[in-house]
This record gives sequence, C-alpha cells and structure tokens, in this order.
Amino acid sequence: MDKSLYSAIRKIDITRLLNGTTSNVLDDIAIEEPLEIQISFDNAMKREKKNISVTMRTPGNDEELAAGFLYTEGIISSRDIIQSIHHTERICSRNAENEIIVNLAPDFVPQLTKVDRNFYTTSSCGVCGKGSIESIRTVSAFQHQKREAWNMKTKILGQLPDRLRSAQDNFSTTGGIHASGIFDKNGQLLELREDVGRHNALDKLIGHALMNNLLPLQNTILLLSGRASFELIQKAAMAGIVVVAAIGAPSSLAVDLAREFDITLIGFLKDNRMNVYHQGNQHYLE
Amino acid sequence: MDKSLYSAIRKIDITRLLNGTTSNVLDDIAIEEPLEIQISFDNAMKREKKNISVTMRTPGNDEELAAGFLYTEGIISSRDIIQSIHHTERICSRNAENEIIVNLAPDFVPQLTKVDRNFYTTSSCGVCGKGSIESIRTVSAFQHQKREAWNMKTKILGQLPDRLRSAQDNFSTTGGIHASGIFDKNGQLLELREDVGRHNALDKLIGHALMNNLLPLQNTILLLSGRASFELIQKAAMAGIVVVAAIGAPSSLAVDLAREFDITLIGFLKDNRMNVYHQGNQHYLE
Repeated sequence: MDKSLYSAIRKIDITRLLNGTTSNVLDDIAIEEPLEIQISFDNAMKREKKNISVTMRTPGNDEELAAGFLYTEGIISSRDIIQSIHHTERICSRNAENEIIVNLAPDFVPQLTKVDRNFYTTSSCGVCGKGSIESIRTVSAFQHQKREAWNMKTKILGQLPDRLRSAQDNFSTTGGIHASGIFDKNGQLLELREDVGRHNALDKLIGHALMNNLLPLQNTILLLSGRASFELIQKAAMAGIVVVAAIGAPSSLAVDLAREFDITLIGFLKDNRMNVYHQGNQHYLE
Repeated sequence: MDKSLYSAIRKIDITRLLNGTTSNVLDDIAIEEPLEIQISFDNAMKREKKNISVTMRTPGNDEELAAGFLYTEGIISSRDIIQSIHHTERICSRNAENEIIVNLAPDFVPQLTKVDRNFYTTSSCGVCGKGSIESIRTVSAFQHQKREAWNMKTKILGQLPDRLRSAQDNFSTTGGIHASGIFDKNGQLLELREDVGRHNALDKLIGHALMNNLLPLQNTILLLSGRASFELIQKAAMAGIVVVAAIGAPSSLAVDLAREFDITLIGFLKDNRMNVYHQGNQHYLE
C-alpha cells in the first residue's frame, strides 16, 4: 500500500479571493480521517475484542495515539500491559488504515467502565467538574511524585511559541493542525506531535513517551498550540507533567485542575507576555 | 438558586508578566463544566431514561444544546418529538445544574445505535470517512431541498468576522470561547451562540432554530469562529445550511463532505481575502 497516503496533508484545487482578485490555486489541507481504537484482552479464559473509541485524527503515529489514549484515559496503567499495537487488515474505501488494535497482556482486565463514562457521578452530586477532578486523582500514577525545585526562566518560556511553530511540519502550510510539544528546562524541543484534534496531538506525544519509558514527563514543559481545556490538563496530569503552557486561553475547569494537582499553568504565552494561572509549589518564575 | 452562577465567565486572580513586569490582576476565564444529556422515552409500554452524552460545555442555553445535539446527531428528526426539556433537580457540588433531560413523545422510539457508534462500518470497508459521509446522507432531512440561486457578495462575506467578534459577549474578555453565528444574505447577524466547545456553540444555534421552527437554515450564512472540522459540517448539513464560512482552516473530510452535499465552504475568511473550498451549485460569488 502506498504509504504516501499517510501524509498529513492533501493538495486540493481551491479558489482564492485576494483584494478583489480571483485565482485558482493548489492548496494544502490537513487530512482528517476516523480512527477506531480496539483492544484485545483475556476475559474468562477467552480472548475478547472491544471497540474503545472512534476519534477523528490526522493519520500518522497511530500506534502512539492508541497507546496514549488508553493511558491518559486510565484504561491501562503501564507500558508493560501493551503486548503489541498494529493496524487491522481492513482498508477503508479511501484506502486508509483506520482501525488499530492494541493487544493487552494476558490476565490484565481493563477497567471498561471508565470508557463508558468518563465522568464521576454520585447519587448526591450528579455529574460535576469537581467529581471529574476527583476521579483523576484515583487513577493518576504520578500525583504524589517528588518534585525538584525549578527556577523557570520567563525569557526561555517566551521563546517556546516560535520554536514550536518553526518545528511544525504542517501548520505553516495548512493553518489547520494543532500541535503539542515538550521542551526541556533550557527550552530545547524534545518531541512534537500534530493533529487536527488537539487531544490527539497530546495523546500521540504521551503515547510516544509511554512506549519509550519516558514517563513521568516531570522535568519538561508541555506547550499547547491552542487553548487549554480540562481534557488536555487531565491528560498532562496522567503523564506526570507539572508545567503546561498554552498559546491560547485556559478554561475554568482547566485552571481548577491545575491548581488541584499543583501543575504550573501558563496561558496566552507570547515572547513578551504571559498569564500565570497557577504557579506550582517549588516553581519559581524569574 | 443563584442564576448568576450561570454566567459564562468566572473572575480569578492571576499573575501577569508583561515586558518583564509582574502584576497580580483579576482575569476573566471561560467556564467549562460537564453537561449530561439524558432522554426519557417509551419502551415496551414503560417509560425509560437513558444517558446519551456528557459534553464539556459553557453553561447557558443548555436546553438548546440538548435539542440541537439530539437533532444534529440524528437521534430525533423533528421538533414535535420533543415534549419538554428541563434540568434535573440534582445540583452538583459546584452548585451547577449539569444534568438535562429531554422528554420525547410517546410512541417515538429513538435510534440509539446512532449514539453508540457515530461511524458507519461495513465488514468490507471498516470505519471510514467516506462511510461517515454516506451515513449522514441517510439521516439528513434537507439534502434534497430546493435551492434558490444566490449571488453572494464577497464584500458582505468579508465583513462577517468583524461583526461576529463585535457581537461576541465573551470572546473579547476571555479569548477562550468559540462562536457560531448565522447571518442573512445582507450580512445581518440573526443569532449567535458561544461555548468553550465549538461543536456545542453550533448545537446551541441549531437547537435554537429547531425549537423555533426555523429549520432548514437555507438562506443563511453560518460563520464559525475557528476551524471547520468534519463534525461541524455534518451538523450544518443536518440543519440544511448551504453556506459555511470559517475564520480558520477546514479539514480534508470537511471539504469532502461540503462537496458531497454541495455546501459552499469558505475558509480563512478575512475582510480582504478568503479561500473557497467548494462553491455550491447556484451560488455565485461576486
């Protein structure tokens, strides 16, 4: 099969109107295709298969996406549980590989109630952002990790957006792809993943770290190309990330979760300005 | 209960760094809270209740959000099926009303397989963007609607982003809220909805139109404040919208769906430029 179909970009003919002039041009657009994530696991001595999620994603790094999704959603708790990850042999009529299967270790029983309901409900409280935060506490492996003191240089933080943008393969040509990048304390980019879905970009990044035994991502800065929603901070917390910076705005629940988990959260990051929504214990801005 | 809690904005203390100077300021952030949408319906002579979805949304217009979601996901096909919509009496510990129930007409049996799997799968093809497009064809009530010819003035189109922004209550203060607006042919804003989730903003808008018997929204322009993904064009198609303009980029599957359904799709809309990804039959740009 032609692997070039896996490129994140497709060229299409469009009409461009610019200052009253019309021209037909070949334009790059970001590819969006569904990915169905399945798991295979032992249940009462029998091998069973279950569809876990369908996500709209940009093809590429699908194994990382599947691994990262299972990990950040709390379905698996360590890399060892994953025996193998591969696409199924079914090719869809667009000639894309849109199904991926994660084989889990024998004797591991996944917590599938977490899949059916991501939100914590009690009979007294109902569905609630506060309950959601508490439910993450029960599954996050790294919330009690010991932290090193960190003097964060705001000058370095301010350089990260440009570094992310210049490293992005796709953003500049399509304008339509979200990115998640992790940087070390000196502002060096360690890894970058891109996707039409911001949660997918982060799952790919965390999936990469999981598969390479790099978790927790404690001494790194996570930079999000867009806004910071609850879901993204949840995933960061699951990966033991303690500094999150976003080029866009955070939501209320993202701030609450960051404060609850003592994650430094920076929004509207630019070279000469930033908003600090929470400054973690032992994190000092200078 | 204090309805002011329903405001889409919360004020919090943050630290702002600007050109090397640090200050503590009171900042506006967009509220994000989960909403659980439930339906109540007759099943084998018994009244049954089912949880349909939990979405992270900005509180406000929850009834429209629930109605719009059920409609754009194909679970209900007309306004008449909805008997009533109201929040349940459970207040979560953050003092928010995060559960809403839609009472459906007696004898109406909702198609709940659509909830469990939004994507079309066949044994030969697997999950596929093309299949997803086809599945929308089977449920969209307006795909064969008769269209009027429309000479779209690009000058009017170019004015819409500014008009949307100036009408947005929340965007300017938080920078964190997506908007969906519908405009008439002369560029007058008809309705606007905002939410931390772009799909929620559009569901609220379409829910409003459904409840007020305004569907199909045929002679209007839908303007999206961000990017145009497949999901947003799917919802627009369900509401009979034939012109979609986005301030951001469309994805490949959004373009495919627009071309398949003959929906005029404009991206990167600015006052002096725009990209036309598909120009609908009988739509003329001038």
